[in-house]
Amino acid sequence: MTDPLNVCLERKKGHDRPGSPRSVGWTRPKRVLLADKNNPLPLDCGESLQPVTVEYETYGRLNSAANNAVFILHALSGDAHVAGWDAEWERDNRPWRKDRPGWWDEMIGPGKAFDTSRYFVVCANLLGSCYGTTGPWEISPRTGKPYGLDFPVVTVEDWVRLHNRLQDYLGIEELLAVAGGSLGGQQALAWAINYPERIRSAVIMAASARIGAQGLAFNAVGREAILNDPCFNGGQYYRDSPPRCGLQLARMLGHITYLSQNSMEGKFGRRFQNGNAPGYRLNKEFSVESYLEHQGRSFGQRFDANSYLYLTRAMDYYDASAKGQGDLASSCSKIKAKLLLLSFSSDWLYPPEDTREVGRAVLANNQPVSYLNIPSDYGHDAFLLETDQTTPLVESFLRKV
Amino acid sequence: MTDPLNVCLERKKGHDRPGSPRSVGWTRPKRVLLADKNNPLPLDCGESLQPVTVEYETYGRLNSAANNAVFILHALSGDAHVAGWDAEWERDNRPWRKDRPGWWDEMIGPGKAFDTSRYFVVCANLLGSCYGTTGPWEISPRTGKPYGLDFPVVTVEDWVRLHNRLQDYLGIEELLAVAGGSLGGQQALAWAINYPERIRSAVIMAASARIGAQGLAFNAVGREAILNDPCFNGGQYYRDSPPRCGLQLARMLGHITYLSQNSMEGKFGRRFQNGNAPGYRLNKEFSVESYLEHQGRSFGQRFDANSYLYLTRAMDYYDASAKGQGDLASSCSKIKAKLLLLSFSSDWLYPPEDTREVGRAVLANNQPVSYLNIPSDYGHDAFLLETDQTTPLVESFLRKV
Repeated sequence: MTDPLNVCLERKKGHDRPGSPRSVGWTRPKRVLLADKNNPLPLDCGESLQPVTVEYETYGRLNSAANNAVFILHALSGDAHVAGWDAEWERDNRPWRKDRPGWWDEMIGPGKAFDTSRYFVVCANLLGSCYGTTGPWEISPRTGKPYGLDFPVVTVEDWVRLHNRLQDYLGIEELLAVAGGSLGGQQALAWAINYPERIRSAVIMAASARIGAQGLAFNAVGREAILNDPCFNGGQYYRDSPPRCGLQLARMLGHITYLSQNSMEGKFGRRFQNGNAPGYRLNKEFSVESYLEHQGRSFGQRFDANSYLYLTRAMDYYDASAKGQGDLASSCSKIKAKLLLLSFSSDWLYPPEDTREVGRAVLANNQPVSYLNIPSDYGHDAFLLETDQTTPLVESFLRKV
Repeated sequence: MTDPLNVCLERKKGHDRPGSPRSVGWTRPKRVLLADKNNPLPLDCGESLQPVTVEYETYGRLNSAANNAVFILHALSGDAHVAGWDAEWERDNRPWRKDRPGWWDEMIGPGKAFDTSRYFVVCANLLGSCYGTTGPWEISPRTGKPYGLDFPVVTVEDWVRLHNRLQDYLGIEELLAVAGGSLGGQQALAWAINYPERIRSAVIMAASARIGAQGLAFNAVGREAILNDPCFNGGQYYRDSPPRCGLQLARMLGHITYLSQNSMEGKFGRRFQNGNAPGYRLNKEFSVESYLEHQGRSFGQRFDANSYLYLTRAMDYYDASAKGQGDLASSCSKIKAKLLLLSFSSDWLYPPEDTREVGRAVLANNQPVSYLNIPSDYGHDAFLLETDQTTPLVESFLRKV
C-alpha cells in the first residue's frame, strides 16, 4: 500500500491531535518476548525460531469479560502504531512519527469505526518486519550477526500463529474481531480459517484468497531490484550503507500498483515538473516521475530491504485454499467467525472479483458473510482512503457481532 | 512489447522457412547515410545531428509508378528486420536472428497481410536504437567516444522526420501506407499528422495519442533500474560490462505490462517452478518469476541500455495533441490519410478507450477512419499475436486505399 503515513496528506484532512476527543492520544509501543528456548515458534518452513519479541500497541480498555478486543492487522509497510501519536518517536529513530498519527488513525479512536471507548484495540508488528518485532535486522543468536538472509522464510500463517501467542499473553480467549486491509486482510482471513475458535468476526478489506501471477510478478521485480543493489551484500548491509536505491525502486513500482490508472491520471496526467514545455531530458521531467521518486526515497529511508524481501514473499505464498488442498470452499468450511468483506472498485492489485470469490466460498458453507464492493477511484489504497465509506459499515458490523 | 522474437514460440506455430512460398526468404540489411555536415538532421530538442546512418530492409518490388510502398514502423525493442531470414546474422553479432525470422514475419510476405507480391515493404531501425541506425552506442564525432548520454533526446517526430528522408532516398513521393503497433502505431499517427501529403493511409495498432500517467510511471521505474546499475557508469559502459542487470529489471517490468492479467494467470497462475510444495525460498519459486527472469536476461543480452532510456523517453514525450495545442481533434485536422485503427480488448498499456479517442478526433474532422476493438486475451502483445484476426482487416483495408 501507499505509505500510510502520507494518507492524511493525500486527503488534505487535518489530523486528530492528541488532545482531541477523537484521538487515542499519546501512545507508547510495548514489547514482549513470545518465544524463547523453551518455547520456540514453529514455522511453516519447518524451522523454529527463538527468541521472538513482538512490538505492539493497545488502545482503550479490555473489559472484565475480556470480550471487547479487536486485533488490527497491518499490511506490507505498516507497523504496530496504528493510532494516536507516538510519545517515544525519538527512541528508535522514527522521526516520521513526529508529525503524523498512526497509519489508520482515521479508523481508530473514540467514536471512530473501531471505537476505543467501546473496544480494546491491539495492533502488533509482523514477524520479519523492522519496527520492533523480530526480523532479519536482529542479531541471530547462532551467528552473533544480524540474521540477514539467514532469517527463515515466514508466512502469513506464521504471523497469525505468533499473534495468537500475543492474544494468549493479553488474556483474551476470543477476539471480538480481527481486521485489516491488503496483506492485513489476508491475515484476517488466515485467522478465520486457522483459529476459528479464537475470533468472533473478521473484517477483510482489499484482500483475496491469494494473489495471482501478475501480483507475483510485480513482487518478483521489486525483490530483484533489491538483490541487484550493490549495497545489498547478501543481506549483510547493516553496518554499512543499506541498499536504499534497490528498495526505493521496489517501492516506486509497488506504488504504481496501489493507485488506479484513473487516480494517477487525475492526479498527474502528463503534467511537466517545471513549466509547460518539454525540457528534453531523460529524467525528472514529468510530475509523476518526481512523485514516485519522492515516495520511493522516503520509504527507502524508513524501511528495511530484507524485511521487504520477507514480507512480499509471505504475501506471495499466502493461499487461503491450501488448507482445503486447493479448494477454497473446503478451506472456508473451517470458518466460524462472521465475515465482512470489502473490496474497492478500482483496486487492480486485489481486484473485487477476487474478494467476491472468498465471499462465495464462505456462502458455499452456509456461513454468514457480508460483502460490499465500494465504488472508489483510489485503487488498492482505497482501504486507507475511503474511511468515510468504510466507517459506518465497520461500525454497524461490529455492533452486531 | 514482448520480445517479438519469442512470438512464434508463444503461438507454437511453425515459421515460414526461407524456401517457403509465403516467406520473403533471405534478407540483407542495408545502410544509408541520411544526414551529414551539409545536411544535418534537425531535432525537436533544438539540436541537430550528423552523421546519421539508417539501417533498413526492403521486401518486394517498388513498381514503376512508385505507388505501392508500405513503411512498417517498429516498436521499442524491434529492428529493421521485420520479415524473412537474415542472411548476415553473424556480421553484427546478432545470433538470435539465426533461428528466427523477422519480428512480424507472420504479417509480411507473399500472400500475407502486407503482401510482398503486391507491395514494396520497407522497415527501418529507429534513431537512438541499437540495430544499425545511429544511436548512443555510436562514436560521437565531437568527442571520439561513444555518445552515451551525450546523445540528444529524440522524439517520435524526429524518427518520422528521419524516415521521411529515407522515403525521399528511395524515390517514393507518396507511401501507400505506414503501419505499426505500439510505439510503431504512434509513429504512424505522427506520420499522418506531420506528413499528410506523403502517405495515403496509416494502419495503427495498439496505440494511442499519448501514454498516460501510469505508462509514464512504468517507464520511469524501468529507466531508474538502468541508471541505478553500478555498471551504468554515466552511460559510458561500452568498453566494460554493460548494465545488464538494470536493463533486465526494466524489461521484466515492461514485460508485465505487455501481458494481460488474464493471460498471465492462464499461462502461469501460481504454479511452482519445481514440484507442488512450496520451497520456502526468496526467489525462483514460482514459474512466473523464472519466466520473467529469462525474458529479462535474454533482452539484456541483445539490447543496449542507453537505447532503452532514449526510446522509452521518446514514448513518454509523444503527444499527438501537441500540434493542436493540446486539442487532439485540431491536431487530427491535418490528417489526409485513410486510417485503420485497431485496439485489443485486454491491452492495458494502450487501452482500447485511448485508441478510440484517436478515432473520435479524426471523425470530428469528417475524415475517413475505421476502428475495431479486437477481442483478445493477449494484452498489449496482441498486435503481434492476433495475426489471424488482423490479417484480413489489414488486407482489405490496403486493397481499398
